[in-house]
Parts: sequence; C-alpha cells; structure tokens
Amino acid sequence: MIYLDNSATTKPHPEVLKSFEQVSTNFFANPSSIHQLGGDTEKLLIKSKQQIANLLQVKDDEIIFTSGGTEGNNIAIKGIALQHQGRGKHIITTEIEHPSVFEACKSLESLGFQVTYLPVNRDGIVSVEDVESAITNETILISVMHVNNEIGTIQPVKEIGELAKKHPKLFFHVDHVQGLGKLDLQLNDSGIDLCTMSGHKIHGLKGTGVLYCRSGVKLFPLFHGGEQEFKVRSGTENLAGAVSFVKALRLIKERQKNQVQQLQALSQYLRQELKKIDEIMINTPENAAPHIVNFSIPGLKPEVMIHTLGKQGIFISTKSACSSKDLDESRIVKACGYDSTRSKSALRVSLSYDNTMEEIRIFVSKLKEALNQLKDVME
Amino acid sequence: MIYLDNSATTKPHPEVLKSFEQVSTNFFANPSSIHQLGGDTEKLLIKSKQQIANLLQVKDDEIIFTSGGTEGNNIAIKGIALQHQGRGKHIITTEIEHPSVFEACKSLESLGFQVTYLPVNRDGIVSVEDVESAITNETILISVMHVNNEIGTIQPVKEIGELAKKHPKLFFHVDHVQGLGKLDLQLNDSGIDLCTMSGHKIHGLKGTGVLYCRSGVKLFPLFHGGEQEFKVRSGTENLAGAVSFVKALRLIKERQKNQVQQLQALSQYLRQELKKIDEIMINTPENAAPHIVNFSIPGLKPEVMIHTLGKQGIFISTKSACSSKDLDESRIVKACGYDSTRSKSALRVSLSYDNTMEEIRIFVSKLKEALNQLKDVME
Repeated sequence: MIYLDNSATTKPHPEVLKSFEQVSTNFFANPSSIHQLGGDTEKLLIKSKQQIANLLQVKDDEIIFTSGGTEGNNIAIKGIALQHQGRGKHIITTEIEHPSVFEACKSLESLGFQVTYLPVNRDGIVSVEDVESAITNETILISVMHVNNEIGTIQPVKEIGELAKKHPKLFFHVDHVQGLGKLDLQLNDSGIDLCTMSGHKIHGLKGTGVLYCRSGVKLFPLFHGGEQEFKVRSGTENLAGAVSFVKALRLIKERQKNQVQQLQALSQYLRQELKKIDEIMINTPENAAPHIVNFSIPGLKPEVMIHTLGKQGIFISTKSACSSKDLDESRIVKACGYDSTRSKSALRVSLSYDNTMEEIRIFVSKLKEALNQLKDVME
Repeated sequence: MIYLDNSATTKPHPEVLKSFEQVSTNFFANPSSIHQLGGDTEKLLIKSKQQIANLLQVKDDEIIFTSGGTEGNNIAIKGIALQHQGRGKHIITTEIEHPSVFEACKSLESLGFQVTYLPVNRDGIVSVEDVESAITNETILISVMHVNNEIGTIQPVKEIGELAKKHPKLFFHVDHVQGLGKLDLQLNDSGIDLCTMSGHKIHGLKGTGVLYCRSGVKLFPLFHGGEQEFKVRSGTENLAGAVSFVKALRLIKERQKNQVQQLQALSQYLRQELKKIDEIMINTPENAAPHIVNFSIPGLKPEVMIHTLGKQGIFISTKSACSSKDLDESRIVKACGYDSTRSKSALRVSLSYDNTMEEIRIFVSKLKEALNQLKDVME
C-alpha cells in the first residue's frame, strides 16, 4: 500500500495507541473525582497540559483539549462571536478556509453576523493589505488558516498577527491543522489569540485535538457543564486522548526537526516529475508546505483516477476529505482563479514522514500508466 | 481496590479497548475519503450505526456519534434552541439536571431565552402535571433526565413523552447517561425526540457518545464543517470510538439482562445496612435506579470520609464528578428540600456490574470503622 492521503488523515503511530491503551486502563478515574484515584488522573492531565505547552512554547493554561480540528475551529469562531458580539458583529476570513471555518462563519451569518470572505491570488495567498482594509470598528475576529489543506499554500499569518496586535479590539484565530508538525508557528507574543490543532493529522488519534487560547481571551463555550478545561470546554476529560496527543506531538516535532528536508525532497521530486507530463497542471504554488502537491488533469474526472490508482493500492484524493462527498468543483482551486475544467479535475497528493522516494517513483509511474489507459475516457 | 464511583466513570472493558485499537490500526482512513480505504472505513461506520440502532430499536439515521454526554446534552438543547427560536424561546427543565443540561440552559438565558426550572418532590421526582402546566405557546423544548446522577431518582420520562406527543410544536430531550444499561428506555414512538448517551459510563471510552435524534428533528449544529453525521455533527468521524461504543453498548445490554437483579440486591443490601447506622440519612428514594445510593452524614465534611476510605483503597464520591470541585452543597439534595446540614454532607456510592456483595460488605464495615474514628471531628 502506498498511502498518499495524509492530509485527510494519518495512520496512528503504534506508540500513540500504546499510550492511549495504558492510560485508559491504569488511569481510568474521572479527573474531577476528589478521591485519590481522581487525584492521580488529574495530575496526569495537568502534566499532559504542561508537556504540550512546553512543546508549543506557551503557558499551561492556554491549552484546551478538544475532540479535533472541527471542534477547535468552531469553538474559536463561535466562541468569540457569541461572547463578544456586544463589541461588533463583523468577522474577516478568506475564501479558502477549511469547511469547519467556512461553514462556521456561514452559520454565524444566519445569526446576524457579517462576514467578509477575502479573495486570494493565483497562488492561494490572501493579501495582508486586504485584511487591513477589511477591518472596521465592528470587526471582532480574523480567521486565517496557516497551511491550506487542499493546495498547501502558506498564509502570511505572522504578518496578520502583527496587524492584529495593532487592533486590540479584535481577536485573531489560526487554523494550524495542516501546518502542525510541518512548519513552525510561533504562538507566544505573535498576535495570535486562538490556534487550532488536530491529533489525527499528526499520527495521533481521531477524536483528539488542542485549541490554543491565549490567557485572558474569553469564549462563549459550545459545551456548558462541569466547567472542565477552564470552563471553556466542559465534559469529562478524555485523559487517554490527551496523553496520546502529547505523544503524537512530541514524535511529529522530532520528525519535523530531522526529516522535513527529506519530505521537501519528496514533494520537489514529485512536482518535477508531474511538470514533465503534458496533461497535468500543478495547482500548488512553489514555496508551499512540504507535504501537499495538488494538480489537475483537465478533462478527467478525478474520481476515475483515484479508483484506478486505488485498485493498485495507491491512495490519493480529490480536494479535502471534508468536502469530497460533494462531487462538484474545488472551492479552493476555483478561488485561486482557475476555470472550472481545472477546478473540477483537481487531485491531491499529501505526504507524511513515513513516505519514501521509492513510493513516489512508483506513484509517478503508475499515474503515467493510468493516464495512458484513461486517455480514451477523457473528454 | 473497591471502586464505587461508577457514576463518575467506569473502567473501560478490555474488549472495548481492543476494538478501539484494532480499528485505529486497520481502519485508519478517513471515512469521507472517496478511495477504497475510505470506502472500507465508511462501511464500518455505517455498520456501527446500524448495530447501535438495532440495540436501541431505532433507525440508523437517528444515531449521531458525539464525544460524550456533555456534548450530547449541549447539541440537543442549544441545537433546538438556536434552530427553532422562531417558534418561541421558552424551555422547560428541572432543578436537578446534570450541569451539562443546567448550565446549557443558563447559557441560553444569556442569549435571550426563558427557562423554567421545575421543582422536584422529596424523592427528587418532577411532577408530570407541573410539566404540563409550564407549557406555553412559546415552549420549544422540555429537557428531563431519566436517572438522576447524584441520587438515582427515576423521572417519569415515559409520561412526559406522552404529554410531549400532544404538543407537536415542542421537542422533548432526555439525558439518559445514567440510565443506559441499567434501566430500559423506549425511544421509538415514545415522544422522545432527543436522547443523550455516554460511552465512559458503560465501560466504554471517554470521548465517545451517542445522541439519538429522531428522524426529521432539525438542530442548529454546534460544529459546522464537512457535514458528517447527517450535517448535525461535522468533523472526521472517530470510527474506532464508534466501534468501541458498539462493543460497550452490546456488553452492557447483556449484563443488564443477566445481572440487573444482582445489582439491585447489592444496593438493597447497602441501603439496609446504612439504615442501621444512626449517623446516616439516606437521600436516595426507594424505587430508584439500581446502582446509586446517596446518603448524608450530617456534621461530617464528605471529603473527610472520602479520603479516609480512599486511603484504604475504597473509592466513593460526593455529588457528581462534574460538580465535585465546587465544595459547596449539593444542588440536587437541596432541591429535594433537605436542609444545608444534609445537602452539604452528601456521599454517593455508585455501583457497576463488576462490584460484588463481598465488596459492599467490606465497604460497610470500613465505613462504620471510619465513622467511629471520625466522630471526634464531627461538628
């Protein structure tokens, strides 16, 4: 099997699963129980939080455990909107956010908020000047992702953070789900108030995630109840999930340090080989994240290629898994200004540190073979 | 170890953990990915849903996977409120709901909703007539729990369901977290529109749960995004968690069938022994759920008893874990009309099918010993 759909999800690392199992068995008590067993689990929960805070270079009380990226993005966006609507009801985001940001913003429109969806250039990049011009007295939130999940574009979140610092009335949220473990992102003193991370994109477990929430930032909780997680996210803590996240984060940070150049070499080789194929148009810009290469084969339905390769044990995807059941065009490729022949035929290869050069070679050769076979069915 | 805090959380069953691990390893793909691996995980997800639906005797599309009880209660309550506020902004609930219902209702008050918190009688039971009288033209939701988490009272949810049927404009939500696996609850054709269940209370995993949502009931989602779970709960599905829930539910339903009388015998024996102790006043009514016995030792701080027993490896609790950090009195015992000496000294024993008569005997004897030792510190 050659698995090249790592932006949809990654295979859990065996050590991550082992942590989960050990904690579930040995520290099963409720961290809110005041007896000694509860005390032990509470200590481990606090330690997990400290370890994540250390790895991210932030404070312990800025780490909120969530069930994943979609929850993190929704808590951040709706939490700011509902809590701070007295200050204003305007939100700024971009046209190429993940559905969990895009649809959360749309849902707020139905509750009376106004949302500006900024356009992006051909490379999928939003302009910092456009963000600045969009800010009004009513703006309470800017939400811009770090790395785009479909085409791998890196957004100028550092610069937007600097801009956000000058506007203390508004909050800045970054969806870091695709960037985590591939690209560094400074959180502390960055102008970033909220930052979403997901476990299952870094060889952690589904149902786990972290929201960075800067000290002092108040959110309207989506889950009210027992006031766990500093009242931001009530519910019995998934301690085994939290510890498994620590393990996944530590492992991915080590691999980022030691293997990111190797990952970059894989995607560069892939780009270079794809460029040689006449039928293929690459949608991912140069200087994108090291693990995503998106390209179109105009005239070929992407699902046909996916199934042809799938039969041979090679797994790639169309756009994002979270939009893939909708067989229409890619909202992201379209937003980059490409026509519908291109936005309707986009394919995504997304790598992990587990992939090898040999796998990429096989992929390229099987892709060429498939293209030759499929030429007849192309429009 | 004698673990008697099963209403706070239960120890995961080894088979549940094994399912989780196997699915995480062998079915790690994203169910939304359109390649064959994604197709395989999607099939397993659909199968899990069918299995749960069969066990609960409802339809497949009425099962929504969640991260647990708090999420289920919040989705149900806020989801109805935000979606149907055009019909009216009045909610009916009781004074003895779990914090995730109680605080979710409080949060809606801050968004302009009106909430009626109905009183309960000495046994902690709400009157169906009171529910009926509270219904107005503006009422869109009734939320009443099945089994109270602190004192084990069983609410007349069947009768309230019949009442709700006569008022098609409103929805009826039942928090079934403590009842699941201990007491039957008919969902189909019951007047119940929404019903919350949690994995970790039935020897399943933390971070797993199910919300029953009757066909045709529309909710405003808390998580917008990739439109998973019939658009009600976006986010990459925690398939391993879902399969682990199936396993936990099947096991607990078997145990309920075969062992519930044994469980009842344990709590009856416990009640009978507690009655013989002068210092103890039992708060749990007769005819309560078979796994919860709540009692007060007026004059003794409950945390003192918990720590004394804890040192000997016996674990019981004060009120609910979700309220236990707040060392004030029990909101539930108080709502039953008891004075503050009693509501501030409540202790809860909560059983699972794993507990034995021998464990209860030891508990009673250690409790008496502790009482004798602690008499000096009693007020």
